[in-house]
Amino acid sequence: MDSAQPLYLQLAERIGALVRTGALKRGDRLTSVREMARQQSVSTSTVLQAYRHLEDARLIEARPKSGYFVAATRASRAPVPEPDLTQPPIDSNSVDVSWMAERVFAAATDPGYISFGAACPSGELFQLDRLHRAVTRAAQRHRASLGRYPFAPGIEPLREAVARRALGMGCQLDPRNLLITNGCLESISLCLRAVTQPGDIVALESPTYFGFLQILESLHLRALEIPTHPRTGLSIPALEFALDTQPVKAVLAVPTLSNPIGATMPLAERRQLARLMSQRGIPLIEDVLYNDLHGREGRRAVKSFDTEGHVMICGSFSKTVAPGIRLGWVEAGRWTAQVRRLKAALAGGHTELIELAMAEVLSTPGYEPMLRQLRTTIDARVEEARRLVGESFPAGTRVTDPAGGFILWAELPPEVSSVELFQACLRERICIAPGPLFTATPRYRNCVRLGLGGAWGDVQKDALRRVGAIAQAMLKSARRSVECAA
Amino acid sequence: MDSAQPLYLQLAERIGALVRTGALKRGDRLTSVREMARQQSVSTSTVLQAYRHLEDARLIEARPKSGYFVAATRASRAPVPEPDLTQPPIDSNSVDVSWMAERVFAAATDPGYISFGAACPSGELFQLDRLHRAVTRAAQRHRASLGRYPFAPGIEPLREAVARRALGMGCQLDPRNLLITNGCLESISLCLRAVTQPGDIVALESPTYFGFLQILESLHLRALEIPTHPRTGLSIPALEFALDTQPVKAVLAVPTLSNPIGATMPLAERRQLARLMSQRGIPLIEDVLYNDLHGREGRRAVKSFDTEGHVMICGSFSKTVAPGIRLGWVEAGRWTAQVRRLKAALAGGHTELIELAMAEVLSTPGYEPMLRQLRTTIDARVEEARRLVGESFPAGTRVTDPAGGFILWAELPPEVSSVELFQACLRERICIAPGPLFTATPRYRNCVRLGLGGAWGDVQKDALRRVGAIAQAMLKSARRSVECAA
Repeated sequence: MDSAQPLYLQLAERIGALVRTGALKRGDRLTSVREMARQQSVSTSTVLQAYRHLEDARLIEARPKSGYFVAATRASRAPVPEPDLTQPPIDSNSVDVSWMAERVFAAATDPGYISFGAACPSGELFQLDRLHRAVTRAAQRHRASLGRYPFAPGIEPLREAVARRALGMGCQLDPRNLLITNGCLESISLCLRAVTQPGDIVALESPTYFGFLQILESLHLRALEIPTHPRTGLSIPALEFALDTQPVKAVLAVPTLSNPIGATMPLAERRQLARLMSQRGIPLIEDVLYNDLHGREGRRAVKSFDTEGHVMICGSFSKTVAPGIRLGWVEAGRWTAQVRRLKAALAGGHTELIELAMAEVLSTPGYEPMLRQLRTTIDARVEEARRLVGESFPAGTRVTDPAGGFILWAELPPEVSSVELFQACLRERICIAPGPLFTATPRYRNCVRLGLGGAWGDVQKDALRRVGAIAQAMLKSARRSVECAA
Repeated sequence: MDSAQPLYLQLAERIGALVRTGALKRGDRLTSVREMARQQSVSTSTVLQAYRHLEDARLIEARPKSGYFVAATRASRAPVPEPDLTQPPIDSNSVDVSWMAERVFAAATDPGYISFGAACPSGELFQLDRLHRAVTRAAQRHRASLGRYPFAPGIEPLREAVARRALGMGCQLDPRNLLITNGCLESISLCLRAVTQPGDIVALESPTYFGFLQILESLHLRALEIPTHPRTGLSIPALEFALDTQPVKAVLAVPTLSNPIGATMPLAERRQLARLMSQRGIPLIEDVLYNDLHGREGRRAVKSFDTEGHVMICGSFSKTVAPGIRLGWVEAGRWTAQVRRLKAALAGGHTELIELAMAEVLSTPGYEPMLRQLRTTIDARVEEARRLVGESFPAGTRVTDPAGGFILWAELPPEVSSVELFQACLRERICIAPGPLFTATPRYRNCVRLGLGGAWGDVQKDALRRVGAIAQAMLKSARRSVECAA
């Protein structure tokens, strides 16, 4: 052991070794912080630092009011195979997914349905009291803001708070270059408007978030889908090939916990991607919506490797602070002036009161522990859902094993049509999102996205098993009709 | 007198006759409501109704805690001549006003300047307490909304409240067809996106709000400016000629209290305009931002004459409830589905808490009296400003006499460059908006817009006189150099 290491790291390594050798097993409770400090003759804050380090490394997890426990390790995670690198066709496509998205949304927001359709986390996952207090306080202290016409780029305290939070992603953003928006979608649509004209080609992950496809559709842009690995994300060689062969005007990506396949690009690839963008003079529109849900290196943004302003970084608070506050932000690198001008012209500023409340929440201590708690809760839930998929979906089903977030992507046997599965599930008041929603190509017909951000209890677990049973029945019937035809 | 008339109308007519014959003069205090009821042997509510009727007709005005007074009549208004029908060139133009708009905005929002540059009303004109209470209550009662992801088209109670308020404009809007937006600008940009492609021509008033020109610039649309009369607004014959001769894809207009010239289109022209749009199958994007600031028939929207869904009506609350709440709405007639789809794709929903608070404010009694009070306050202020312009600006200056709102448009002698005047005023920390900002043509070089929605006291009055003095000096020097050259 390297005695030059800080004390807390030395302690963390000792405990980590116990976990790895099996001396401490999944679910074992760790010695309390106070007791451990006494045993090791270190301060309690050193022990806390060590435990947090192990938590970030996902070796242990905190449970509220109970203490620290050994977490499920990769090896102990449900042994369901993961999908391979995706292989979309190599031509760009015009987009037409809105009709399907509207049907999924209608069911996803109808309380009569058990919804795995939307990727929206539900309120119970967040500390809404803190935000509620901030709103009430802002209304009291900043009553005059109700009488002030709000302008872009948004209030300085919020832009400063965003800049401080961005340090956690390795980014030094100048608050003067930040623009507050009506959520990440608006950030992205402003960036796309600033750097493209109708008919232009935009490269993005495949599969991709259908909201991105809807933006492209609305702006009359063409989608060029790039092969994407469920662990490591956008394939850089494939992207390079695309840039070599097609007039791509922008790249739109979610390098951390991409939606729907949950990929997180390794740091080396992030560096490569930033360099590639600079070399080609093409903007990367980087969506960091989920970065704070990644406890480790995946939190670092591609923007942190961007030296020449070719990365336009877009974020929001709806996945990490509260879904009900509709605010986002963007730092558009060398396109900052254009993006700001578009925002001012097309939509104006935002209700300052809400900006003030958000600035307060982001600036008070407790944000990091809240994130930690959120990660632990959703990790456990997603792991449980993976197990259920492994048990109840047809043999041969593959499912992603994301390093965070609340989304799973399952690839069923090719005979199962996910659109038919979607429709059959709707009849039983269960909503899932079918694969074709996430592409402008004819792929992913046998894939589904499962959003696990909503309520999670026995009803939902039974519903997930039921999705599996319906898929089993569909597969059986599909194979029978093939036999009959033969 | 027609005895079939309601009692309050009979009483109102009797009092009106006294004002018109001069028996009651400007500034005279009316008999108190209680005393008048006793004298006339009617109920106090009948007297109140009569007084409100006279207030709407601008014959009398209420002063808080003092009673009712005879208002300035047209005849007693400052005898400053008004500008003529505008005569923009007949070709469409690409737009490039953003740079000037940014300079005006920067000064308009800097507290170091005395600002007549922006057309934003200041908080002191509104009953912010009511709104503040509504926000606090919404935060208490609807805490769960912070945990709910908000979607377009916005919450039902707000859409219902907007539909109820639209009755005052003569419109029966179905809440299901209403879409809540991030303010009127966003409503208008969504409408334009739904009905145009880059390069298309949009017809609008001349001069027009520079925000509209910025939207057109951002969407790469061409502006075709239509002659507009400072009293009666958009010239319908000129518009018809434009539609006959050019491929106009949409008409964008502010039929009530247009910005900057404060015109209000008479009802007959409104009916004609609605019919024209239906005949040609072209959409009118109608901005009703100021309709509630017009006490009389100008409140009625063109949309109320639209039988076939060719009017897309756009409104907001920033001029009538509170500048600091950034919310607007749109009912897009036959383009409702397209506009909603664009909104969902490009920007999403809004913070529900604010929508809830706004729905409450719009639904409680007191909104109408508040509007009445607001109108009285700004009418008096605008009349005072007109007088000051008449006294201090160069001889030959014409100024509009709008039927409401807080904007004046002054046409100075042709030798005065309003851009130079703007720059000279800036050096003395006074901000005005130069005429060229309100057009994509080379017109209005000798015009300025004066926004009177900000603070209004001796400092502002002196500053307005100072603008006049600077203009006088500029004119003198211009004439002197002409003499020298001769």
